[in-house]
Amino acid sequence: MSTEDTPHKDADERSVGLVSTQYVDLFVPPHSLKVAEGNLLGPVHVAYETYGTLSEKRDNAIFVCHALTGDAHVAGRHSAKDEKTGWWDELIGPGKGLDTNKYFVICANVLGGCQGTTGPMSPKPGTETPYALEFPFVTIGDMVEVHAALVRHLGIERLLGAIGGSLGGMQALEWAARFPDMLRTAVILASGPRLSAQGIAFNAVGRRAIVTDPHFYKGNYYNQDDDPHFGLALARMVAHITYLSEASIEKKFGRRLQHSDQFAYELMRETEFQIESYLHHQGKRFVERFDANSYLYLTRAMDYFDLAKSYGSLPEAFSATQSRFLVTSYTTDWLFPIAQSREIVSALIQARRHVTAVELESPYGHDSFLLEVDQLEEMLKPFLAEAYATK
Amino acid sequence: MSTEDTPHKDADERSVGLVSTQYVDLFVPPHSLKVAEGNLLGPVHVAYETYGTLSEKRDNAIFVCHALTGDAHVAGRHSAKDEKTGWWDELIGPGKGLDTNKYFVICANVLGGCQGTTGPMSPKPGTETPYALEFPFVTIGDMVEVHAALVRHLGIERLLGAIGGSLGGMQALEWAARFPDMLRTAVILASGPRLSAQGIAFNAVGRRAIVTDPHFYKGNYYNQDDDPHFGLALARMVAHITYLSEASIEKKFGRRLQHSDQFAYELMRETEFQIESYLHHQGKRFVERFDANSYLYLTRAMDYFDLAKSYGSLPEAFSATQSRFLVTSYTTDWLFPIAQSREIVSALIQARRHVTAVELESPYGHDSFLLEVDQLEEMLKPFLAEAYATK
Repeated sequence: MSTEDTPHKDADERSVGLVSTQYVDLFVPPHSLKVAEGNLLGPVHVAYETYGTLSEKRDNAIFVCHALTGDAHVAGRHSAKDEKTGWWDELIGPGKGLDTNKYFVICANVLGGCQGTTGPMSPKPGTETPYALEFPFVTIGDMVEVHAALVRHLGIERLLGAIGGSLGGMQALEWAARFPDMLRTAVILASGPRLSAQGIAFNAVGRRAIVTDPHFYKGNYYNQDDDPHFGLALARMVAHITYLSEASIEKKFGRRLQHSDQFAYELMRETEFQIESYLHHQGKRFVERFDANSYLYLTRAMDYFDLAKSYGSLPEAFSATQSRFLVTSYTTDWLFPIAQSREIVSALIQARRHVTAVELESPYGHDSFLLEVDQLEEMLKPFLAEAYATK
Repeated sequence: MSTEDTPHKDADERSVGLVSTQYVDLFVPPHSLKVAEGNLLGPVHVAYETYGTLSEKRDNAIFVCHALTGDAHVAGRHSAKDEKTGWWDELIGPGKGLDTNKYFVICANVLGGCQGTTGPMSPKPGTETPYALEFPFVTIGDMVEVHAALVRHLGIERLLGAIGGSLGGMQALEWAARFPDMLRTAVILASGPRLSAQGIAFNAVGRRAIVTDPHFYKGNYYNQDDDPHFGLALARMVAHITYLSEASIEKKFGRRLQHSDQFAYELMRETEFQIESYLHHQGKRFVERFDANSYLYLTRAMDYFDLAKSYGSLPEAFSATQSRFLVTSYTTDWLFPIAQSREIVSALIQARRHVTAVELESPYGHDSFLLEVDQLEEMLKPFLAEAYATK
């Protein structure tokens, strides 16, 4: 348990308070992890956080799968000075949707990431040189394999649930398919059994921006004077557009100008419209916290994810799972449209699995899964309580 | 008339045959064009083509306004060896939607463009140095001003019509508002009275890709060893996604692989999926024919276009026009959604103007206006014939 016993003065009663990231080495050679194409990877350093208390029966653990650019720090603060809480703090804490009075919540950075878990910026074993592009290709299956090893390392045989949105939802699906005996519920938000061709297209643009940045240096930018921050920022800008709905951009920014009511007619002013200023800001902030090589690996893993292809068909992917599913989609999400969720639900029904499907009205596009926390909490509490009560 | 009298052996009966681009200098100082912010520009070299014959009454001329990356070469072939015809050849020719047996069709490259009309790659007057970023900022109003001067130069007081899709539709709207006495019909396809915030966002990403390309050289790349072709290709790739519907990308490419049925799991293979290969190809082809500075100027002009802001309100913009309008939108167009066209139609009704509104079912997204030629022809023929008959 990483929550401190004395509540922090800033923390309200519903916060997990001060927390810290923990680390463990798994897959230490000769027990290396076999990843895509048969490459061996080990040791795998894993960054994770936990909140709440594991029950004596070890039956109350819920694994939070983060999305593309998330990390293990999902709730609370690392220090009293932190202005920001973890990325899904609204959902996780005493009395919240993932109630830490009741459940033991785990979140870990994904394999291939850059927030503490082994990825392309990690040093190659026995050296101080980062892997860079020598890092082996990893799939979402490999990411889940690492997280399953972490869960076992924590002494847990079976999770009460895995929950995630977007790439996190893909991981939760993979959990259910790959470890049918380890999972009692799966909560899939704003996700799908595969990325659409349009989604692949946007990822391709983002990666292209990174690899054509002259400071990419074929991935070996770690010891250079500069890194591909222009390319990475551009990748983030284009991705960010896909996270918002047209209506939400229109409402939040519309055609409002940043500096004046009058058009400046200055070609090179990149912040004339508020939406431009916002996107540039998002790009700049992103490069401060994310590694360009990780972005390449993780978006590619997302492109490749294809549950039906991996398991023969979608119903086959779900044939062994004992999980109850909660599948939630959002009306204005165009990165993972409702049809994607319907396909999951349909396959679950074909496989005669237990599924609750919810299509939520929300104006916020793909980001809805992060923003519509109240609605999510309302569904999640009874869904988890019922599963928890059903032994 | 630029159509040759002897039909080319390859040209079928419905082709305008061999054509050639013509050029004229307008706004020769001291009669320079006053553009945005009061800057003076002149002379303005204009590239244009015409098809069909101007009637004795000079009342059968139709002006085709091209979209962002179009040019004056809209129909026929420049030489017998040309594999490709003009960009809207399906619509223009004897017996076609814009029937050159009946109408005199004009198309000209826009101001700020790079296909023969004065733009940032043109030499500054009296020098051999291209304007580059010293080219003054130009608006869609300025583009139409140049085209109106061309029309007058051709001895035409009043056009039977102006027709265009996307940025071309914006020009046709501006024609109607700016030159109410010069226009008898306006055909607006897949367009709007302004670009959405989402559209501005995508344009911002494209421009950012260009200006952060190390070979941009602050716009002075014309005499350098290299130019910002990576950035320009990237801009095209992202824009191209917005031209297609999700359904059309899914149908045309889906998740099919380019080289094999098996995933290669190679991080740096940029053409694993067919959609990637297609986008990269589009990017590469585009840089062979387009100038990066022009792309900056024209997308910015598109961002700024705001008919309501320029004329007080949309109904006011249409208050003086005598034009009949045909406003067509397409169900899967998400760059200019149907709501944008409805706003034009609503304003025209408020201004008590003559309007025909059509919302077409099409799977092709924004590109529908170029692809759904049969449907367009079916509407266009009676619409133009009626207006032509009504003196």
